[in-house]
Parts: sequence; structure tokens; C-alpha cells
Amino acid sequence: MFRLGLINPNTDPIHTSSMRDVALETLPDGCEVTGVAPERGPTAIESEADLAVAALGVVRLVRSLPGQDAYLIACFGDPGLDAAREVTDVPVIGMAEAAYKAATLVAKRFGIVTTLPRGIPALEEGLDRYGVRSRCVAIAPLLIPVGEQGSHNPDTTDAIIETGRRIVAEQGAETLILACGGMADVAVRVSEEVGVPVCDGVAFGTMLAYSLWRCGLRTGKSGAYGWPEPIAYTGMPGYGD
Amino acid sequence: MFRLGLINPNTDPIHTSSMRDVALETLPDGCEVTGVAPERGPTAIESEADLAVAALGVVRLVRSLPGQDAYLIACFGDPGLDAAREVTDVPVIGMAEAAYKAATLVAKRFGIVTTLPRGIPALEEGLDRYGVRSRCVAIAPLLIPVGEQGSHNPDTTDAIIETGRRIVAEQGAETLILACGGMADVAVRVSEEVGVPVCDGVAFGTMLAYSLWRCGLRTGKSGAYGWPEPIAYTGMPGYGD
Amino acid sequence: MFRLGLINPNTDPIHTSSMRDVALETLPDGCEVTGVAPERGPTAIESEADLAVAALGVVRLVRSLPGQDAYLIACFGDPGLDAAREVTDVPVIGMAEAAYKAATLVAKRFGIVTTLPRGIPALEEGLDRYGVRSRCVAIAPLLIPVGEQGSHNPDTTDAIIETGRRIVAEQGAETLILACGGMADVAVRVSEEVGVPVCDGVAFGTMLAYSLWRCGLRTGKSGAYGWPEPIAYTGMPGYGD
Amino acid sequence: MFRLGLINPNTDPIHTSSMRDVALETLPDGCEVTGVAPERGPTAIESEADLAVAALGVVRLVRSLPGQDAYLIACFGDPGLDAAREVTDVPVIGMAEAAYKAATLVAKRFGIVTTLPRGIPALEEGLDRYGVRSRCVAIAPLLIPVGEQGSHNPDTTDAIIETGRRIVAEQGAETLILACGGMADVAVRVSEEVGVPVCDGVAFGTMLAYSLWRCGLRTGKSGAYGWPEPIAYTGMPGYGD
Amino acid sequence: MFRLGLINPNTDPIHTSSMRDVALETLPDGCEVTGVAPERGPTAIESEADLAVAALGVVRLVRSLPGQDAYLIACFGDPGLDAAREVTDVPVIGMAEAAYKAATLVAKRFGIVTTLPRGIPALEEGLDRYGVRSRCVAIAPLLIPVGEQGSHNPDTTDAIIETGRRIVAEQGAETLILACGGMADVAVRVSEEVGVPVCDGVAFGTMLAYSLWRCGLRTGKSGAYGWPEPIAYTGMPGYGD
Amino acid sequence: MFRLGLINPNTDPIHTSSMRDVALETLPDGCEVTGVAPERGPTAIESEADLAVAALGVVRLVRSLPGQDAYLIACFGDPGLDAAREVTDVPVIGMAEAAYKAATLVAKRFGIVTTLPRGIPALEEGLDRYGVRSRCVAIAPLLIPVGEQGSHNPDTTDAIIETGRRIVAEQGAETLILACGGMADVAVRVSEEVGVPVCDGVAFGTMLAYSLWRCGLRTGKSGAYGWPEPIAYTGMPGYGD
Repeated sequence: MFRLGLINPNTDPIHTSSMRDVALETLPDGCEVTGVAPERGPTAIESEADLAVAALGVVRLVRSLPGQDAYLIACFGDPGLDAAREVTDVPVIGMAEAAYKAATLVAKRFGIVTTLPRGIPALEEGLDRYGVRSRCVAIAPLLIPVGEQGSHNPDTTDAIIETGRRIVAEQGAETLILACGGMADVAVRVSEEVGVPVCDGVAFGTMLAYSLWRCGLRTGKSGAYGWPEPIAYTGMPGYGD
Repeated sequence: MFRLGLINPNTDPIHTSSMRDVALETLPDGCEVTGVAPERGPTAIESEADLAVAALGVVRLVRSLPGQDAYLIACFGDPGLDAAREVTDVPVIGMAEAAYKAATLVAKRFGIVTTLPRGIPALEEGLDRYGVRSRCVAIAPLLIPVGEQGSHNPDTTDAIIETGRRIVAEQGAETLILACGGMADVAVRVSEEVGVPVCDGVAFGTMLAYSLWRCGLRTGKSGAYGWPEPIAYTGMPGYGD
Repeated sequence: MFRLGLINPNTDPIHTSSMRDVALETLPDGCEVTGVAPERGPTAIESEADLAVAALGVVRLVRSLPGQDAYLIACFGDPGLDAAREVTDVPVIGMAEAAYKAATLVAKRFGIVTTLPRGIPALEEGLDRYGVRSRCVAIAPLLIPVGEQGSHNPDTTDAIIETGRRIVAEQGAETLILACGGMADVAVRVSEEVGVPVCDGVAFGTMLAYSLWRCGLRTGKSGAYGWPEPIAYTGMPGYGD
Repeated sequence: MFRLGLINPNTDPIHTSSMRDVALETLPDGCEVTGVAPERGPTAIESEADLAVAALGVVRLVRSLPGQDAYLIACFGDPGLDAAREVTDVPVIGMAEAAYKAATLVAKRFGIVTTLPRGIPALEEGLDRYGVRSRCVAIAPLLIPVGEQGSHNPDTTDAIIETGRRIVAEQGAETLILACGGMADVAVRVSEEVGVPVCDGVAFGTMLAYSLWRCGLRTGKSGAYGWPEPIAYTGMPGYGD
Repeated sequence: MFRLGLINPNTDPIHTSSMRDVALETLPDGCEVTGVAPERGPTAIESEADLAVAALGVVRLVRSLPGQDAYLIACFGDPGLDAAREVTDVPVIGMAEAAYKAATLVAKRFGIVTTLPRGIPALEEGLDRYGVRSRCVAIAPLLIPVGEQGSHNPDTTDAIIETGRRIVAEQGAETLILACGGMADVAVRVSEEVGVPVCDGVAFGTMLAYSLWRCGLRTGKSGAYGWPEPIAYTGMPGYGD
Repeated sequence: MFRLGLINPNTDPIHTSSMRDVALETLPDGCEVTGVAPERGPTAIESEADLAVAALGVVRLVRSLPGQDAYLIACFGDPGLDAAREVTDVPVIGMAEAAYKAATLVAKRFGIVTTLPRGIPALEEGLDRYGVRSRCVAIAPLLIPVGEQGSHNPDTTDAIIETGRRIVAEQGAETLILACGGMADVAVRVSEEVGVPVCDGVAFGTMLAYSLWRCGLRTGKSGAYGWPEPIAYTGMPGYGD
């Protein structure tokens, strides 16, 4: 039986539970998903400062939730991904990484729908880091903050559909990525309306974690992702506490 | 119930059945794997000329095996991958693509063990095309032809282990990829002996296919992977026949 | 006396003879051009599936037409180029590769006029593979299928001219490439009307083949382009038959 | 009068004061340098987990130390750099970024001396992010932990000199970068012994901060580095507290 | 006391003195700036042919102006930069290189305002060479020749402001670079009007030169920038005469 | 009848005449080659300073030798190539560019034999600029100055052969490039001894020039290579005088 630790890096419990539901529905029967979120931190993640807080929260959540077969970091910024891979030896998947891997399996060219223009350079850096920059034909901001995403904001859904249609028609996007965990629950409707596959990093990231587990693949610990060196900490027990 | 069409691009029936076994063992219970191979073609694939024959064989096998939920092309050259994605709308996964996606999830840097030096430039072009060139620290040829790979050639397995150990120790590979379908059945032993994860594209490619299916993701047909244009053919009914 | 094997990868005899004429006119006096096309295959090449059929056809044509000093593959997809270089030791030139080499000799930035939008990602992959992506400022599709290209379709020629003018004026293209063998015979007229050089891969590819021959340069056989390994084939004599 | 906030991301007070001394000596007379370090956190930074703790510490130190004309983050991992640039509008400089900018001004090719092999992939990612990967000919690990760096460890200094000599002679490094704040105080001696310039990110980063200030240049706040969005925080006042 | 040799590669004495003023104002008190320009050469630099003349002029000026602590080449084409670094061992800074280094310290994404469209490919090659191509979101030509730049041409300043506003609003430029020494004296006004930092390579390049000097960093002479080989010259004493 | 202006950028008359002989022998009968060299300048080109002198010499030679159908710049540094393309509208070919184009037509991977290690970074920049960096597996310096190259220095030829053999065997070079005009006359012998094609930029560049002429292709003058802007010159008539 596969046990997934789904880590919501923000503190919004609605996000935690709706993403846990997506993960559970996607997995085959008999798997277990534990959704967790930090006690302290931002209710949504829009800036690099929010990400810095969230990254540390992710590391601590991984340390505080043992006994999992894999972890999913369910925020499109993939906060704390490299650090989380150091502090456990089971697989850790980032939601953005997962969405890009899905998109490059079903299409040559993808487009990204995001929230605010200020996040575009960070998305582009992620495209470079994940080796998919030449596969992305558009990053289109909705100009709507994270807090107003999700299926309970029908106007936002309409804006996503309209934006998606535009980058499919004008830029040649063959699939769409919704660059926000808060958009996950509208992916199916956007796909139906726009007529292209919509890659959701929560669902596909869940399946990547499951896939590694089925293959017996764990994080390589001989190099970059080795257990952290035993550094002394001042004023706190260590990174995980 | 998930049905996978596992396509062995060479004509060696032992490869077909051993790779089918790997796929079946990796999938959860209740899935179905149909292994097929071309009636005519090379018994092993070492050259671009062999790949050209194999690529057309793959397209025809996909057309001749309907009713699948996804296809896996089980040769590290990923022959016919783009064409196969055109001629069906269910997902098609390439074995090399799958191995690279696994490796980049469990490690920062991977090393490849391959058969002959002549294949290195083609592997490097694949690394570029899949966006993972900077993640690869070594491509080490065994100098042993494809025909002598597999668990029934213990000397070859020893050579793989020795080569793997070397690129882990000297080049900093944190995980290994065995760039030949014929090496799939020794992956577990190599991993145990070398002490790093070994990413097998047959097993992980099977799971990627399953994962896309669980997520309801099919190949985008609005652009590069659209159904082929209705071109008239001379002397043959069409590409699929 | 230089003998060129001009290989038309599609089965349209008008293409074969018009491209042979272009090659003959471009070469100095006393050279010989043999134009050949597959007996079986697509009448035009628009999809990856068509390319897979064509690639194998090219390999077989090279094997069936000995005694040449060089070969030219006269389709912008360069089908079977790497395989063809394995199965002979005289030079083999691809038409797209030739056009890009011409364009980068006469201009800093080029623009491509192509047929359908679905082909753009494959063109971009070719730009990457040939190392000229940063030199290309536009890929403009005419939205007209291959079958309606050529000087006997005056409306298509007008569309090429209009599209060419636009990418020269708006994107800064300093030379144009017509990404279809079927457009070769309108290159001169487009150049006159648009006022920039138009690089035709058939004419320049012919001259690259001649140039290598004059320099005594043949394909290097010590590595990637070595003669194919002697693999056993099932149900057919080998790749070339 | 220029006031620099020098932020040591680890908690080692000897590092803080020795790096403050370097900054003061490098600046022209009459400048002020305030050295600060987090109260809680790692005494040295070797892993991504340490960096996650340090990054948040840096953001908080910037917020807690107003009235500066610029900040320098004095750890080679540049922890929290993007976030720090959001939470202030005076310039923030990273030590690695500074070292790379110095090296590319005095040489075509540089080599890096670092502590442990596990950090090499993260250094390479930094080279990519800062656009200097093709300028780096070697990353040579000393196999000596951060804690044993500095002028009070003469054996370490000898190892740095020997390693530096090797990458100058064998890889063609024309200048050296010491990838650790703890190595800053031996830069001059290494330069004298090896005979090439040694670029220290603390000294040059201090001068970059001063230079931006002299030019009246502040961080652009209209895009990626804009003030953080006003996100509600749970269980804590905000990122800066 | 720091002595800067400011080299104006064109022969326009107004440029020389206005750029010298910018350098003097930017440096702390007590520094010395000697502005020089070639006796023979173009009054402005717009073409590669002009640059070829200017490059040789720069080499000769460096040789003819000894006793400096650093040199600044004050033309955005950075003519003769590599050669100048060979013929002296004190630092030599290029104005474009300096502007790019400033821009990447204060913003993720910059935009360039230039004079004529013909110069765009050369600017793009510079972006590649300096490793900052992915940081540049726009190169916008004013369609106004170099000769009409500067604060004494108010219409040009208005055009710069309008162009700058457009690329900030539409392309997401977070800072601007004015790609012409002749625009240096309007940088402050453009910054005020457009509301983003404007990076001037004359001012910041002056400070980079000063910074290297404060750090005791000189050009590495062990490799690419080594003193020129002692080649015999025909008809002239050598490169510097 | 094709007339080639062969421009030797150094002042060594033996180089001029031996390269003219290579060009004449490579061209078909009835072509004319005029070899020219600057009256003043370096006798060999080893440094960027030499290149700066040579570049201006090339521009002037092109202007002083009208009536040609194309020009070849016969020095591996391609000095003045962009400027030369501005000041004429017939094709101008660089010797390095030509060698790279030949090598990428006959092999996947090439190796370069050069003179001194100091030139390696400049060669690498050229590889980037011409888009062929990933095709180059080795740049091996002979440690022998340009002045001692050529068939009249048998020891140098032996060193070239030995170095070539090494990079073929150890790095997988499938063809060799001799990065010095002075090595042109030993290319055939090196090829025979090492057993791989050796691409000589003088011979192949001559043929590229001829090929463009046969195709009626001239340099595009609408953008980067447009005629120079009419800039006033001080103390000299213009760039060409």
C-alpha cells in the first residue's frame, strides 16, 4: 500500500484538503494520502519572500511526517524541493516539475497560465532549470491573485479559459499548464472548454511519486541529495525543528 | 483496467517477452500488457539504418494494435516516437525519455552506460532534445554489442557494474541509466552492487503511461502531434500498412 | 566528372524532375545528376508518419543507386539523413541543412516560410540540431499544403511573397528560406519581389555536395557515421532492401 | 557616507567579523559596515537544508537592519538573494554573483575551489543562472568541510594553493574563485602563490554595492523584485518577523 | 589615488568630455580621469566597419596612455576590448559589459534602447557573449542615428522616454539600458520619467574599474589575455603604433 | 568565369601564394584567384591585438580589390568578417566558418588542432558564434607558434599527426580541423596518416564562395550587413582608406 505525504506549503486548509482529494482520486484504490500544511506561514504564496518562509516549512513538514513512501510539494514554486530531497530518502516530487514532465509527454509545445506578471521571470528560471524552456511558447498572466483562484471563483475560471484559448490559437500551445495549486480543481473544465489537455501537477505529481515507488526508485544519496552534513546549529536543534 | 501496448522495435522475441514481464510486474494488479514486435526488421538496433527500419515498424505496430490505453516504445533510441504520437491519440512513451524523466526525479546528475562508442553522439542529441544535457555527467560505452546484453550474459553484467562504479566515483553520477532495452533485467542487480538507483526506462515508461491514463491525459492533437494530413500514397495504402 | 544522386523522398515525379533541373543548372558544365524517387510512399511529406516512410525510402534509394560522387536528400525534413550517411562513404547532404548553411553565409538573421503551423516545432528542433536557432527570427506558415506549392500555383507564390515581405519588414529577416522542396522553382521570383536573397536548399545543397567532392572530403567512418554494425535481420535481407 | 549591511547567513561570529573587516578595508575611507548574523541557525552552510534556514534568516536580517545604503549576503550560496531584493529597495548583492562578475572582468576562463563534491551540482546551477557556465573550466573540491576553512587552518590553505595551481596548469583557469566565505582571508596569499588573480566575492561584492550606490541605482521594483504582495500570514506576523 | 583612462573610441570631442564628466562625478573625491579619443577615425560608430577602425584606435590609445590604474572603453560596441586587455595588465572595462552587469544586479529582466535596427543582431551577439541573453526582454530601436543622441537633442530624449515606457509596460523590462554612449547624459531624466532604474555603462563601468583597483585585481595574464606573442610586423612598428 | 579575391590577413607572401594555389587547385578550370595581403601588419596572427590590426587590413583590402565575385578571408580568426560583409555586396567567406561547415557535413563530432593554448577561449567563442560548440569534442594545442607551421616544418607535421590521432582515439573526433592557415598544405598528409577526413577552410571556403556565386546568392543588405551608414571621419577619408 502506497502512502503519500502531500505537503501544502501554504496554510490554507481548503487548499490542503482539495489537493488531497485530487491525489486520492488519481491514485489506484487502496493508497493513502496524508495532507499537511505548516502551522505558521503565508496563506498563499506570491513572492520570493513567501517562498523563503514556505521552503523552510516544507523541510520541517517532511521531517515531522515520517513513514511515507513519497512526498509531493503541492505549490507551483516547488519551495524547498532540493532541501526536502536531502532530508529523506524516499522520493520527493515538485508540482511544477511534475506538470512540465506531463506536458512534454503529451505535446511538443505547452503554454502556462499564471496569476501575476511579476512571477514570470521566476517561472522562466524554472523552465531553464527543468530543461523545458524551448518547449514553452507562452506564459500568460491572468492578473488575478492566487487568493481568488479555484472553482469557487467562476469569473477566474472564465478568465483561465479565455486566456488558454488565446495562447492555443495564437502561440500554438498544444497543452496547458495551470501554474497554481489553486487552479487544480478547474483543470478538467478548462480542458473541455479549450479542447487541449490540461496538465495538473498535483494529479500527475502524485502519479510520479507512485511510479517511482512501484519501480523501487529512491532518491540517490551519494551526491547532491546526500543526507545533510552534521552541522552544529545555534539557538535551534537543526533545520528540521 | 489499463491496457498497455508494449512495442519492441526489434524482432527478438526474448526481448519482447522479458520487457513485457518487467512492465507487468511494475504495474498494479489487474492491468494488461500486450507485447508486440515487427515481423520483419533487425534483431537488434545499433545503427541509424536499423533505427530507420525500426521507426517505420513502430508506426505500423501502433496502427495494427488498437484498443490500448497507451503504448510504450521499448528501445533506447525511441524510434518512431513522434510519428507514433501522430497516429493515435492515447499516450505514447519512449523508453529513453522515460529513463531521463526518472533520473532527473531522483538525482541531480546521472550517468549512462551504453554499448558502443559510435552511439554516443546520438545519445547526446537525445539529451539535448529532452532538455537534460546538463544533468548528464558521463556516457560510458561498454564496447559490447547489444546482442550480448542481458542477464544471460554474466560477463556483460560484470562490465556494467564496473563501469557504473567508475562513473559514480570519478564523474559524480548519482544515478545510472542503462541505455539498452537488453540491459533492463539486470538493473536491480547493478543498483545493489553499485549502491545508486538505476533507472530502467521500460519499468518507469510503463508507469508514465499508466500515470497519464490515470490523469485522463491524452496526446494533444491540435498541433505537432495532430492526426497526419491526408496525403495520397503511391504503391502502398499508407504509412500504417 | 561529378555525378550527383538527387533523391526525392516523395513519389511525385514532377518534383523529382524539377529539382533535378535545378541541380543541373546550378552545377558547372559536364556534371551528371540522376534524380530518383521511391516507388512506394507518400506523394508529399507533411507529417512525421510520412517522414518515417520517406526516411526508409531514402536509405534504400542510396543503396540502390551506386556509383555516385555524392547524394542530395531533396526534402526539407532531411528524412533519413543520418542513416544515409552510414550506408555510403560519399557525402550525403540534406536540403534543410544546406539552406541553413547558405542563409548563415549571406545574413545574420533569416526567416522561414513554411506550409502548415503543425510543422513549426519540428522546424525548431531542426534549428537546434543544426545550431542555427538564434539566427532565425521567424517561421511563418502559409496555411497552404505542400501539394499546392510550386510555380504552377501562382496564388501560392503571391502568398509566399506577401509573407516574406512581412517577416523582412517586421521581424528583421535579412534572407528567406522556403521550407519545402516544392517551392524551389519560385525562389528567384520571390527574391526579386521581396528584395532579399532567397536560399534554396536544392541548389545550394547540390553545390555543397560538389564542393566536398572537389575538396576530396568524404564522410568520416570512424564514429557515428561508420558502416552499420552487421546485425541479423528477420524477414528481410537488411535495411537496404 | 555609504553604509553597508553585511549579512553573514551563518551564526559564526568569527566569520561575521572577519568578513566585516574585509569589507571595511576594501571600501574607501569614511564608509560604515554593519556586520550581522542570525541568532538562530547553522554555524556553517553545507547543505540545501542549511541554505533553507539561512535564506529565511537573511530576509529577516534585512528587515531588522534598516537605514543601510545596500546589503551584501556573505555566503557563496547567495541564500535568500531574490527574496531580499523584494523586501528592500536599496541594492542587495550576493557574494557568488559578485565573484563571478569580478572573474569575468579579469579573465576569459575561471576555476572554482570549493569544499565538498556534493556541492558541485548546486554550483553548476548557479553558473547557469548567472550566465557564466561557459566561462568556468573547473570546479575542484578540496574534500575539506567549511568548518576547517580560513587562515587559521594552514593545511587547508596549502590544499587550496595546490588545487589552484593544478586547475591553472591543467584546465587553463586564468583566475580563481574561492567558493566559501571562510576562504576570504587567504585570497591574497593564494594569489601570490599561484600567480593568478583570486576573486573574492566579499571584497568585490562590497564594491559592487558601493558602485550601485554611487551611480544612484536601486533595485527595480516594477516587476520580479517588486515589494511582496500583501499576503495574510498565519501564526506569525509575516516573512520578516 | 585612482587614475582612470577613459577612452572614447570615436573622434567627437564633445562625447569625450561629457563622458569624462560623468566618470569624474561618479567616482569618489580625489580620483583622476583622463579622457582621450583617437586623432583619426569615425565621428560616430554605427557599423562594423566603423568598429574595426575604432578597435585598432582603442588598442593604440591604451598603449599611448600609460600610468593609469584602469581603462574604460566608452562605446557600447566595446571595440577592441579583448585586444586592450592583452596590451596592459591593469583592468580594462567595456561600457556594454558594465551596463549588463549593473542591470543584472538591480533587476531580473532588462530592456535595451538602441539607435538603428541594423545593430540588433550585433547587440544579441553581445548578449550571448556576456551570458545575459535570457535576461533581456526587448531591444527597441529609436530609428534615430547616433549623431542625434544626447541631451542637446530634446526630441531624441522624448523618443527614448516613450520607447522605454513601452518596453516596461508591454515586455516587462524592469530596468533600461541606453545602448549608446551619446545617451549617457539623459539617463537620469529617463529614469525619472519612466520610473525604473536606467543603467549607464559609463558611470557603472567607471565604478567597476575603481572596484577592481580597490580589490587589487588585475587582468589575468596566464592565458587568453596574456601579453601578445612577439610577432614581427611589416611596414609598421607593431599593433600599438 | 568566377573571380575570387583571396585575402591573406597577415603579411607573409609565402602564405598568400600557397593559399592561392590551394584555392586555384580546388576550383574547377577557368576560375581566377587573386591573392592579396596587407602592406603593413603582422607577419603572423597569434593575439587579439594582431587580429585588430588584421581586421582593419581586411576591410581595406576588400575595398581596394573591386571586380571580384566573392572574397575569402584566409586566417582562422576570421578577422574583419562582419565588416567586410558590410563594405561589399558579393559574398565574403571566413576560413574558420568554412571549416566548421565542412566538418559538420562529414561528421557528427570534430576535433581542432591549434597552435597555442591561449587561443582556446577565442576558438570556443567562435564555436558558440557559429553554433557548433556541441559538435566539437576537443581543442588540442600543439604548443608550436604559427611561424613554425606548414609543410616546410616536418616536425610540426609530425606533431599534428600525433595530436590528431590522440583526439580521434580518445575523444571520438570523427574529422579534424587544422585551425591555422599555415597548416593548410599538410591537410592531405594528416588525413592519410590519421585516417579521418581533414577539413581545410581555405579549400572549402573557396568552394563555398563559388557555390554562392553559382546560386546567384549575394549578401543580404537590408539589415546587419547593410552598407555602412555615412559617418563622417576625422583625419582619414573613411574605413576603407
